[in-house]
Amino acid sequence: MKRILVLGAGKSTGVLIEYLLHEAATHDWRVVVADLDVDLARRRVAGHERGETAELDVEDDGPRDRLIAAADVVVSMLPASMHPDVARACIEHRKHFVSASYVSAEIKDLAQVAERHGITMLNEMGVDPGIDHMSAMERLDALRGEGKEITAFETFTGGLIAPECDDNPWRYKFTWNPRNVVLAGQGGVKFKHNGRFKYIPYHKLFSRFEPLSIPGYGDFEGYPNRDSLKYRHHYDLWDVDTIYRGTLRRPGFCKAWDCLVQVGLTDDSYSLEGVDGMTYRDFVNAYLWYDEQMSVELKLRAYLKLDMNSEEFDKLEWLGLFERRPIGLKRATPAQVLQQLLEEKWALKPDDKDMIAMLHKIEYAKDGRRYREQSSMVTLGSDPVRTAMASTVGLPTGIGTKLILTGVIDHPGVLIPTMPDVYRPVLKELRAHGIAFQHTVEELG
Amino acid sequence: MKRILVLGAGKSTGVLIEYLLHEAATHDWRVVVADLDVDLARRRVAGHERGETAELDVEDDGPRDRLIAAADVVVSMLPASMHPDVARACIEHRKHFVSASYVSAEIKDLAQVAERHGITMLNEMGVDPGIDHMSAMERLDALRGEGKEITAFETFTGGLIAPECDDNPWRYKFTWNPRNVVLAGQGGVKFKHNGRFKYIPYHKLFSRFEPLSIPGYGDFEGYPNRDSLKYRHHYDLWDVDTIYRGTLRRPGFCKAWDCLVQVGLTDDSYSLEGVDGMTYRDFVNAYLWYDEQMSVELKLRAYLKLDMNSEEFDKLEWLGLFERRPIGLKRATPAQVLQQLLEEKWALKPDDKDMIAMLHKIEYAKDGRRYREQSSMVTLGSDPVRTAMASTVGLPTGIGTKLILTGVIDHPGVLIPTMPDVYRPVLKELRAHGIAFQHTVEELG
Repeated sequence: MKRILVLGAGKSTGVLIEYLLHEAATHDWRVVVADLDVDLARRRVAGHERGETAELDVEDDGPRDRLIAAADVVVSMLPASMHPDVARACIEHRKHFVSASYVSAEIKDLAQVAERHGITMLNEMGVDPGIDHMSAMERLDALRGEGKEITAFETFTGGLIAPECDDNPWRYKFTWNPRNVVLAGQGGVKFKHNGRFKYIPYHKLFSRFEPLSIPGYGDFEGYPNRDSLKYRHHYDLWDVDTIYRGTLRRPGFCKAWDCLVQVGLTDDSYSLEGVDGMTYRDFVNAYLWYDEQMSVELKLRAYLKLDMNSEEFDKLEWLGLFERRPIGLKRATPAQVLQQLLEEKWALKPDDKDMIAMLHKIEYAKDGRRYREQSSMVTLGSDPVRTAMASTVGLPTGIGTKLILTGVIDHPGVLIPTMPDVYRPVLKELRAHGIAFQHTVEELG
Repeated sequence: MKRILVLGAGKSTGVLIEYLLHEAATHDWRVVVADLDVDLARRRVAGHERGETAELDVEDDGPRDRLIAAADVVVSMLPASMHPDVARACIEHRKHFVSASYVSAEIKDLAQVAERHGITMLNEMGVDPGIDHMSAMERLDALRGEGKEITAFETFTGGLIAPECDDNPWRYKFTWNPRNVVLAGQGGVKFKHNGRFKYIPYHKLFSRFEPLSIPGYGDFEGYPNRDSLKYRHHYDLWDVDTIYRGTLRRPGFCKAWDCLVQVGLTDDSYSLEGVDGMTYRDFVNAYLWYDEQMSVELKLRAYLKLDMNSEEFDKLEWLGLFERRPIGLKRATPAQVLQQLLEEKWALKPDDKDMIAMLHKIEYAKDGRRYREQSSMVTLGSDPVRTAMASTVGLPTGIGTKLILTGVIDHPGVLIPTMPDVYRPVLKELRAHGIAFQHTVEELG
């Protein structure tokens, strides 16, 4: 009987744990869920006969290592900063490791020793990173196999709100880590477009979005996401003219978010003076010049050159940025103040459902003709546990874990799911769970 | 006979060394000038009977410490990052220390031990920081002594080009560290205006300048300089409604520099891909969208919303940003590419003279009436050694050194020149060298 240790029972683990417990009977597994909050772990396992729980402070090496030593594979759903310690303990005890997080430099350093000991460390098995890699590589490999020359690759993912719950002027609510949303894009952006390297500084990012649409789900916009150039390596796209990764939002989001960036409210690099005693109105006013006559609203319109009836201004007003309401924080960066306000306004209601949307645009040439293929996937949440985020993160992680235990994935080393042996069986099973891509092709020029 | 050790014989040390050698006969001193480039040190000393030279790699502790041990006071004109090691060696050998650089956290840590051993560590003895502190404190203390209540304090300094050599459209040339000019303002700005804390993000900095003028020298503009709030502490201005420090440029500079910031060309946080083989035109194009029809010039105008006959565009064109000329660097950040181009275009000609301008605006109240005092100082360079920069940095540093050796400054600890015992004799001697402030007062409201 094989043992799976799941570290962390937080928000996005519901579908993962349910999947593993469901598969456990067929494969004769036991699933151990460990969390600092053992009650949370117990609610996830819900008395399932194949499940166990443990109370664990993961920084407490002794108990952590005993749990790891007793397992066959460790699935880390902890914050990414905790993965290196867990991964090193897995190496020491010769256990496989699975996570949905980006491969960090510290994890990469373990590649050789993992290979030597026959251990598989399978990372980036969530949605983004995860399903994006697998679905992109499936199409790229298929097209290359048909003798088509890839000339452009663009990919977009967004964690959004389901159409029936899309009821605020931003058309956005928090379905994932709010801090990452507030700080998105800081550090600037690199990509390649029509054979040229392109750069966009942070303060221009949200004014350079691309309009997009997904059949059946309407219009979106995509803004570029950090360093797209490293994907040349992951996807074997060294000679491609265009490579671009972006984040999806509903139309109108980027222009309004750009206002917050322009004012300076997303800055996380310093603490505000005297935030204790400030209102949200004072907060905005701290970025505008002094004027005895003009209101904060008028100064902001003038500063951002917004028309009287601009949709961007309406969105800012809807957020409550001009309210004479105390912020109520003792010490905070501008980004932290903004995040607090957004968490209130962009909160999910109890019955709100989320949506994950993904879109790949691939251009290729064959026999002197040029084509564009669009592949898209949309998953909607079905209830507060089975959110679209929890399904698209949890299912590939769970399937990856199963494929390691059943010997289908047999690649020692540090992996991401870009090889056919991994992405084929995972995508096949995802399709059976309703996570499937639609394709359209048009001829260009 | 007392010995002065001057570490570093670089660009701005000519006037300092000349001053110290000139004073040496009167006070029976010897002046030892040490530099990695001993020929440079020899040229500075020029065979003066009171002078000596030494070849020194300052990271070579043994020889460095022997020179320090043989001296009575050490004047460090090295790059600021080297000061802490020198200062710690001064403590060890019980020698006084003088520099023109900002007090770093590492220097501040030496305050108690310096006090205990009766050692004076006199910092920020250049122009900015230096003359700015002294001239501001002289006026602030005088006004406070007359029972006037200070309500606003603004101060501006600029290293510029003398009016007769002011012959390019930017009205600017490099008279000081080009890298600092290119990176100026990164990290954003904090100040206080009319009782409210104000913040400006980097990408808005150069659009929020203040028009200024200096009698006899015409118009300027000032843009805010980093964290003005810490000067509340230095100048005992805790209750002041407005505190603002800025940098002076000639009119039109800020709007044109803002274009470079908006495009993203001042970013120093990443290296460009394939800079080897790029022209300056390609460099600019890397920040603009792809378009088969539009020229780089047209795209830039559209991106920055510049009119056809805009002065900003003329300045950008004058720089050569659109030239099809290879950059010729193997690896560079955007800021490094820009700096290379600027160093070519903003180079001083052999007979160009520089200019240091400083302006304090102080508002105060007395008996229910309100006044504004402006104090300004302009120094022009007289030849390639006696530049305005070398004089305004070298003379206060030299005078401070003399005042320590003659016992006039007798304050053990880590100091900046904000106390009357220091600023009075220094400013008096600076006036004798022609570095003097003019004052005007007007009643307000």
